[in-house]
Amino acid sequence: MKDDLVATARVARLATSDQYARPHVVPIVFVYEHPHLYSPIDRKPKRSDDWRRLRRVQNVVTNGRASVVIDVWDEDWSKLRYVLLEGTADVLEVGDERDRSITLLEAKYPQYANIPLGDAPVIRVTVERRLEWSGAGE
Amino acid sequence: MKDDLVATARVARLATSDQYARPHVVPIVFVYEHPHLYSPIDRKPKRSDDWRRLRRVQNVVTNGRASVVIDVWDEDWSKLRYVLLEGTADVLEVGDERDRSITLLEAKYPQYANIPLGDAPVIRVTVERRLEWSGAGE
Repeated sequence: MKDDLVATARVARLATSDQYARPHVVPIVFVYEHPHLYSPIDRKPKRSDDWRRLRRVQNVVTNGRASVVIDVWDEDWSKLRYVLLEGTADVLEVGDERDRSITLLEAKYPQYANIPLGDAPVIRVTVERRLEWSGAGE
Repeated sequence: MKDDLVATARVARLATSDQYARPHVVPIVFVYEHPHLYSPIDRKPKRSDDWRRLRRVQNVVTNGRASVVIDVWDEDWSKLRYVLLEGTADVLEVGDERDRSITLLEAKYPQYANIPLGDAPVIRVTVERRLEWSGAGE
């Protein structure tokens, strides 16, 4: 029995698309609580509203869909595997669900002890489809 | 001086979009030869034409754009970094450029000694824009 990548992985990659269907992809930190994946948008000091201009944020707002891949790389290709999560996406700026996701994120990533997320907005992906692939299964 | 991720990384993640602007992302192996990134489409035995139904292939054919991220994960977030490559994408089925990319792929990945790429098609991303981000620069 392999571990559940969605529960154990430290990093994922988030793909979004803009209004012209141009794809964009960035590495993200995240937590998953079925059926939602949450990824924080770190605010930068002195530029409190700049986060709205991040492409992943603009794409989520204008397009509303996301695809997230969580994978394991290994030079032994029989050990390759990934989980693909697809669904709708939106931004949580306030509210109990945002607050709870921040608590989960700060519990998962001790790095936030030094740089608390505070009132950071969160991208929420509501997963509609989950696909798994394994190199061992080929 | 840090190494050039595009030259040294073993894995990348390729984002594409379908005709409805729905994003898709998968891990890929690749080689880069300026200004092109090449990623092979492994054919499966007995299903020689199934590769055309792969979503990354359908998206490249119908949409024609791609975004590729190559990143380094580290629990020390000052060491995080990524390179984002964006551009047009198409599929090479035959020709000198495809053949050359196969040679480069087989040289980079010794795994192909046991499973030669043969006449595998190749996704070609023609990079128009390169962005770099480093956690140390924040």
